[in-house]
Amino acid sequence: MNQSNAIKNSASLYLEDLHIGQLFESGTYAIDEMHIKTFAQQYNPQPFHLDDKVAKNTLFAGLAASGWHVASVTMRLFVESLPLANGLIGAGVEINWPRPTRPGDILRVTSVIEEMTPSRSRPERSIVKVRCETRNQRGETVQIMTPKLLVMRRGYSPA
Amino acid sequence: MNQSNAIKNSASLYLEDLHIGQLFESGTYAIDEMHIKTFAQQYNPQPFHLDDKVAKNTLFAGLAASGWHVASVTMRLFVESLPLANGLIGAGVEINWPRPTRPGDILRVTSVIEEMTPSRSRPERSIVKVRCETRNQRGETVQIMTPKLLVMRRGYSPA
Repeated sequence: MNQSNAIKNSASLYLEDLHIGQLFESGTYAIDEMHIKTFAQQYNPQPFHLDDKVAKNTLFAGLAASGWHVASVTMRLFVESLPLANGLIGAGVEINWPRPTRPGDILRVTSVIEEMTPSRSRPERSIVKVRCETRNQRGETVQIMTPKLLVMRRGYSPA
Repeated sequence: MNQSNAIKNSASLYLEDLHIGQLFESGTYAIDEMHIKTFAQQYNPQPFHLDDKVAKNTLFAGLAASGWHVASVTMRLFVESLPLANGLIGAGVEINWPRPTRPGDILRVTSVIEEMTPSRSRPERSIVKVRCETRNQRGETVQIMTPKLLVMRRGYSPA
């Protein structure tokens, strides 16, 4: 069974529809040099995200996207690939960036459900921990993000 | 001594200049409704970040900024308030969002150095864990972010 295709056709997943090990594949997102510099100018104005020449003499050894840019693009791909009925609502997250993202990189995200922890006080909701791995066009992992999502049972709303 | 003012005048802090408990205060950043919606359209297109009416019936009970928007604004304020000589290079980070950020909120960030761990293999570098608390104009905490930064001793470069 092609799970990710099946998921793409549904726009309303609830807690009952999820299980540990379940996989969601995103589409792709291309990041070019202008994107990298525009994001950095607004949110992370450091030389290695803004200036190709200066970036060569830094840890990044060349222009690299801000980690927050990579995280934001990952969120876009994640939102499109995991259609929870009440939306993707994160209580918290951990992120690592094992490798820089470069101009011209094409990113995609593979998300796997790792843990599902029912709330003690409100049994209709659980915290679902997901491991989202963001890879470039060479299959190299550029980011690992593990959000904890609030997910509701069918018939309940988090409002 | 007004530590944050002293820090603002220096643009090149090295490992030797940092100590546990050291505090850095940022300037402010105002987030309006257009910012919230523009960011969400690009990176987190979910109803509670895009549509005021729909947002009222969600967990957020009204339009709220994407957590990734808050994180990106926090990074901007953090970069401006902690002038490390080799830049702010994050190996990883944890984030929690205890409260939504609303249109009209004015954010500021207080950063405290929590841990400094020397690298075993490369004694000229350390991992410095910082707790960055982002507060709104009422002093309420909207985000807690704890990045782990790579910081070099004077005379070394991470390149």
